[in-house]
Amino acid sequence: MDVATYIQAGRDRFIADLKEWLAIPSISGDPARAGDVRRSADWLAASLRDQGFPTVEIWETPGLPAVFAEWPAADPAAPTVVVYGHHDVQPVEPLDEWDTEPFAPVEKDGRLIGRGTSDDKGQVFFHTLGIRALLAASGATAPPVTIRLLIEGEEESGSVHFAELLRTHRDRLACDAVVISDTTMWAADVPSMCTGMRGLTEVEVTLRGPASDLHSGSFGGAVPNPLHAMAALLAALHDADGRVTLPGFYDDVVPLTDEERELFARLPFDEAAWLRTAGDSRAAYGERGYTTLERVWARPTAEINGMWGGHTGPGGKTIVPREAHAKISFRLVAGQDPGKVQLAFRTWVDDHTPPGIVADIHVPGGGVRPCFSPIDSAGVRAARRAMERAFGGEVLFTREGGSGPEADLADILEAPLIFVAVGLDGDRIHAPNEKVEIPLLLKGAETSAYLWEELAAALR
Amino acid sequence: MDVATYIQAGRDRFIADLKEWLAIPSISGDPARAGDVRRSADWLAASLRDQGFPTVEIWETPGLPAVFAEWPAADPAAPTVVVYGHHDVQPVEPLDEWDTEPFAPVEKDGRLIGRGTSDDKGQVFFHTLGIRALLAASGATAPPVTIRLLIEGEEESGSVHFAELLRTHRDRLACDAVVISDTTMWAADVPSMCTGMRGLTEVEVTLRGPASDLHSGSFGGAVPNPLHAMAALLAALHDADGRVTLPGFYDDVVPLTDEERELFARLPFDEAAWLRTAGDSRAAYGERGYTTLERVWARPTAEINGMWGGHTGPGGKTIVPREAHAKISFRLVAGQDPGKVQLAFRTWVDDHTPPGIVADIHVPGGGVRPCFSPIDSAGVRAARRAMERAFGGEVLFTREGGSGPEADLADILEAPLIFVAVGLDGDRIHAPNEKVEIPLLLKGAETSAYLWEELAAALR
Repeated sequence: MDVATYIQAGRDRFIADLKEWLAIPSISGDPARAGDVRRSADWLAASLRDQGFPTVEIWETPGLPAVFAEWPAADPAAPTVVVYGHHDVQPVEPLDEWDTEPFAPVEKDGRLIGRGTSDDKGQVFFHTLGIRALLAASGATAPPVTIRLLIEGEEESGSVHFAELLRTHRDRLACDAVVISDTTMWAADVPSMCTGMRGLTEVEVTLRGPASDLHSGSFGGAVPNPLHAMAALLAALHDADGRVTLPGFYDDVVPLTDEERELFARLPFDEAAWLRTAGDSRAAYGERGYTTLERVWARPTAEINGMWGGHTGPGGKTIVPREAHAKISFRLVAGQDPGKVQLAFRTWVDDHTPPGIVADIHVPGGGVRPCFSPIDSAGVRAARRAMERAFGGEVLFTREGGSGPEADLADILEAPLIFVAVGLDGDRIHAPNEKVEIPLLLKGAETSAYLWEELAAALR
Repeated sequence: MDVATYIQAGRDRFIADLKEWLAIPSISGDPARAGDVRRSADWLAASLRDQGFPTVEIWETPGLPAVFAEWPAADPAAPTVVVYGHHDVQPVEPLDEWDTEPFAPVEKDGRLIGRGTSDDKGQVFFHTLGIRALLAASGATAPPVTIRLLIEGEEESGSVHFAELLRTHRDRLACDAVVISDTTMWAADVPSMCTGMRGLTEVEVTLRGPASDLHSGSFGGAVPNPLHAMAALLAALHDADGRVTLPGFYDDVVPLTDEERELFARLPFDEAAWLRTAGDSRAAYGERGYTTLERVWARPTAEINGMWGGHTGPGGKTIVPREAHAKISFRLVAGQDPGKVQLAFRTWVDDHTPPGIVADIHVPGGGVRPCFSPIDSAGVRAARRAMERAFGGEVLFTREGGSGPEADLADILEAPLIFVAVGLDGDRIHAPNEKVEIPLLLKGAETSAYLWEELAAALR
């Protein structure tokens, strides 16, 4: 029985099992649901044991548990691959916008509808079917690579204990590659792989002038106004080409290759439709010389997220205000380090603060490092072949504009990332009526089956 | 008996009467005190009748009443002078910072302490002593000019009905000059006259981008951010010389004369001390080519009073916000028109709004026109002579950075303004422990006595 036939044969059982898991409301952001997140972990652990994983463990954290499972390759010299996903889900409010019960999954018109179907239980679960399909097709009792599943329980609430979990179990997670199954493809008929996610660092700046708000009749025009200074500072953060002016900001950026740009350009992108999804934005605008997709996926940014100071209530108040505030976030791309950007920002603000104004910069955290998988790396090429075998056509590339704990996986496990996923942007993840396309889940299982063969060869 | 002797002789009675008036808590901003403002008007009307004014009337408004009194000159061809002041006072909170009861005026070390002593009852009342002193010294039964007192009851709550009152009684207020006694001198030993007050216009601008806040991971760097647009817009409102960039903004400005600048420069100005009064401002900053006093008195400004948009609460929120707001006020000087500045601002914002951003401008009112009395005008020269005779030395010039209803007096009555006042910046008007220097009040009375003689000659 070949892989595809096995998967078709196992479809109904696969969907029935997945529905059972989806019925557990594992909302990690709701403390009242902690018990459900534990039930979800237990359910997955039991299912993995049933499906043949020789080692299955619940890994505790100070918060909610992860599930670890290992299926060693027969050949001790075979590569090892960690598969990352998560078993917790987003909250379901507003409930009245759901057409069905979020935790009573329903199959309809080839779709499975319910919370977690696409993000991320469905995408975790297709790997189990894929592994069994490969074993059935090959007649082997063990996969050609050692597979280590790590299915987190706190992704939807910020993965707050995840880096520590990785450090604690670093030896048992040693691997040659990390497969991430928590992203999307371009479209059902345009299969694609993500090859990078932007990082993030946030900063807050306060500019202080006089010790108290001043009457602008008595003092206006003769002392520095912190709001003027803030406007000037933030206006200077970009040049006329839309580039960020922090010295050295682009120095470490891994440039887009001509090949990746060319592959991006082949994606059927409808900018007018995209602008509608962007809150009916009236125009695209960004760094000169890059397309919209390049800007959101592969170029770093500085974005003012909030700005305030002085009188912001109804009516007028003719003051020179005592201080001005801004919150700014930088999206970072491959090669950039949040700490270096924070330092560059501090230096730049100090250099741009006018006489009579004192700047105070607060950096609320270390930031999120970007992650990146070069399209010509062995792992990405192997996964692309697996996906092209499953989908029967060319697989293109995308990136994502934001990210979760992916960089921690790459950095702590010191392994390249490979993004294999079959979700769609239209799956309404984090929203009412989340769904997944069942044919794509099965293509995901098929991709998974081929992936272990391809990776065994590519990473050896 | 000469003027000075009469005033010395009348001092105790003058202070005793003034204390009676000050004891009436005529706080126009407090609806519960409306009856007290009426009592204050009645008290003043009775006192003016007692002191010999042939005509005394209470003038009603839709709010609180003004007092009108007229003492015609014997010579029907003599000039007419309107004297403006107000009988309402500021609130007295915080009460626990007062060393004495605000409405139980106390004489101490040559000062009279209590709400309204300097702003403005004391300064209104010195005119009554001055008029009687002149009549006593000259033996006349009528002053050499027709004097028309107009003592408002709503100045401390925005003079909301004052322009209408002026229009209603325009014929009875016809005059050759308006004497304003509601300002300050430079210092007790540096007598000075105010010669102008800045006007004001306020505007609010909203810049809108997407219809909703957007996730900066998905959209950041590829759509216009209204906060960036606001920073750029407001940063462009001034050039590197601190000049306002609105086209035509300075076209109508009556420039400072060399003589006025030279007289300003002779004022003993301690900039370090001034910066301390300016909320411990760390530096003076403003339009290049002008001194601090010139900047606050005689140069127009654009001041951002408030600015806000996006996430302004605790923590981070990585959004491209949907809109940005700012409140801006312009201080205007002689020659400038609030309506023209509002229009220039509208045009300028339209010209500076980037693609993808829509600007919405709100102008909350018509603004306040600046007022100005050239130092070489007949009225100002006459008043300066009167003041120099009273003080026995040179009188310098100042201006004020903000203003109340003065421009309405000049514009509706079509008469030049003359500022005659003896308050000090240190009188703590609008604050706890307001006081007035009694010797200066008496110098004010003496100035007033000479003023009618000087104006009779100068305005004939």
